Amino acid sequence: MWKQLLVTALSFGFMSASAFAMSHPVTLEDQGSFYAGGKVVTAPGTYKDDEPTNFDGETLHGDAAYVFWQKPAKAKKNAMVFLHGYGQSGKTWETTPDGRDGFQNIFLEKGYSTYVVDEPRRGRAGNSTVPANLKAQPQDQLWYDNFRIGQWPDVYDNAAVPRDKESQEQFFYQMTPDTGAFDQDVVADAMTAVMERAGRGVLVTHSAGGGPGWLTAAHSDNVKGVIALEPGTFPFPKREVPAVEETTSPFPARGMEVSDEDFQKLLKIPMVVYFGDNIKTGSTPDSHWGLDNWRVRLNLANKWAEVMKEHGGDVQVIVLPDIGIKGNTHFLMADLNNQDVADEMVRWMHEKKLDR
Amino acid sequence: MWKQLLVTALSFGFMSASAFAMSHPVTLEDQGSFYAGGKVVTAPGTYKDDEPTNFDGETLHGDAAYVFWQKPAKAKKNAMVFLHGYGQSGKTWETTPDGRDGFQNIFLEKGYSTYVVDEPRRGRAGNSTVPANLKAQPQDQLWYDNFRIGQWPDVYDNAAVPRDKESQEQFFYQMTPDTGAFDQDVVADAMTAVMERAGRGVLVTHSAGGGPGWLTAAHSDNVKGVIALEPGTFPFPKREVPAVEETTSPFPARGMEVSDEDFQKLLKIPMVVYFGDNIKTGSTPDSHWGLDNWRVRLNLANKWAEVMKEHGGDVQVIVLPDIGIKGNTHFLMADLNNQDVADEMVRWMHEKKLDR
Repeated sequence: MWKQLLVTALSFGFMSASAFAMSHPVTLEDQGSFYAGGKVVTAPGTYKDDEPTNFDGETLHGDAAYVFWQKPAKAKKNAMVFLHGYGQSGKTWETTPDGRDGFQNIFLEKGYSTYVVDEPRRGRAGNSTVPANLKAQPQDQLWYDNFRIGQWPDVYDNAAVPRDKESQEQFFYQMTPDTGAFDQDVVADAMTAVMERAGRGVLVTHSAGGGPGWLTAAHSDNVKGVIALEPGTFPFPKREVPAVEETTSPFPARGMEVSDEDFQKLLKIPMVVYFGDNIKTGSTPDSHWGLDNWRVRLNLANKWAEVMKEHGGDVQVIVLPDIGIKGNTHFLMADLNNQDVADEMVRWMHEKKLDR
Repeated sequence: MWKQLLVTALSFGFMSASAFAMSHPVTLEDQGSFYAGGKVVTAPGTYKDDEPTNFDGETLHGDAAYVFWQKPAKAKKNAMVFLHGYGQSGKTWETTPDGRDGFQNIFLEKGYSTYVVDEPRRGRAGNSTVPANLKAQPQDQLWYDNFRIGQWPDVYDNAAVPRDKESQEQFFYQMTPDTGAFDQDVVADAMTAVMERAGRGVLVTHSAGGGPGWLTAAHSDNVKGVIALEPGTFPFPKREVPAVEETTSPFPARGMEVSDEDFQKLLKIPMVVYFGDNIKTGSTPDSHWGLDNWRVRLNLANKWAEVMKEHGGDVQVIVLPDIGIKGNTHFLMADLNNQDVADEMVRWMHEKKLDR
């Protein structure tokens, strides 16, 4: 009841961000961070130790993933590994923009070891082996609409997000650029190395983390389940990638073709996909591109689930309002009802015997 | 005794990174993250919600600092706020490259709330209001020599660093580029906002974090003490900045001039500066530029301490080997003896009544 009141108060912006805390103290057995994967490139020429501004023959270590992990006392055997989406870093799973617990704390409090990743060429994993031209281009509103918060400057009436200015600013500040071009294989390779260190667990992906997440699941035996939050794409076997649907969004939903070997591996891993609220299905484009972006992805998800099931896969596509969890934007893990979303994930993990 | 053996084993590379852990479990009362400071820029023109690829009138939130904080049960009143150096992020204070506790864990275990910062335009605080051209330039060896680990590929005989390849690779992977030009004032402004959130505490800076750290101390009443680990520069009053000393390093040591108001404020804050091993003093340039880079900085530190004392400031410059802590590179907080360095910091804080 207290929680319910809190959420109500929050949604009207009555409370400051610092008013929130972990629901109960957590005893950490250990915590730390590391880099995984990556590669070393060497400049041409011969290294000269007495010429500091001559880079001939010097090396660059780049394209690794950064991971911050925490292990609570009496941790469950399955870890939870979190891979963010576009424009985000591991921050996406930490404190929400309005100062509540994010999934990092929520699952730690539930007894899981958590591994929070910055993918290669993002955040603290900024060292890239390829150059990048960062333009400092203002585009907050593009993402606001695309993330289904509302149509700028409006918020969808039912959106489970705080309405105060400070929370919105925190949300925008957490965007962070690519320090090298996004490369699905680079991310998947590093994530496979992350799973090597993390041990057996459930891989939780968000949005653009979905694509490399499927490949990671295919390549690492330590991925025992996948929870994909509004993934941007889905893995299909050869010759079964659906035609790209027309959309008013500038980001069409394209399925990804994976090798037979990868696809066979994916069939053995239980997977659940969650979508939030305000997404239509069907073939009629939504006049607002920010919504239509998700219509075509939900359609693709449903086609993917059919293909997976035909081949014997264990997948579910769950649209949260269909099970009574309402108002979610694209940022399910940070919305006001993120505790409910987390509980639903635990329900699924329990069903798959992964909550241990 | 066990610890001593461990360090010895490590320095010969006998143990894998995963063999280390926090020295004892820690109960967290709370933890989270936030952005502080920053500014909003707006593109010219009028925003059009139905034109997603037209950025006219859109905003960019950038130049904020990112902070991850942890509060142990029964935390001391003074927090510790950590600002990294050049090419680094908050990672610099986390797990060491060879998998031991960094200062984040060490001070948490000692009962301090910790605030680990990524400065604006670095790491998870990647959104910059100015553009940047990232070149992916191999230059590991430049920093290796400049960080006084050795003369590549050699390690100084007495250096308190692990000798195994994996640790060295972890060290190189944690370098991360500027996503916008380094700007001392931008960092100091964001850090002042960080201190606003962190509350009263001790500001710990490293290397290039030193410059903005002095300004933060001058601008925030919450900075009750400064611990500067091999800072790159020092704050002088007008007309008292020393002449720049000749050096074989490509990075001359230049004092920074601060306003009378800032300088007066700095005189009221206890400050200690630590330097590691293998640094000569005196006026004779070292033939190796990587060592000479620190001779001129230690000389500048000593000149600064004199000026501060003349004006009534409370400062100490401590060269660690002079007090029996030997072998430190530029990365005092990550070297094999970082527990000793931390204990020395606590001794100083105790002297200044800041260890409470």
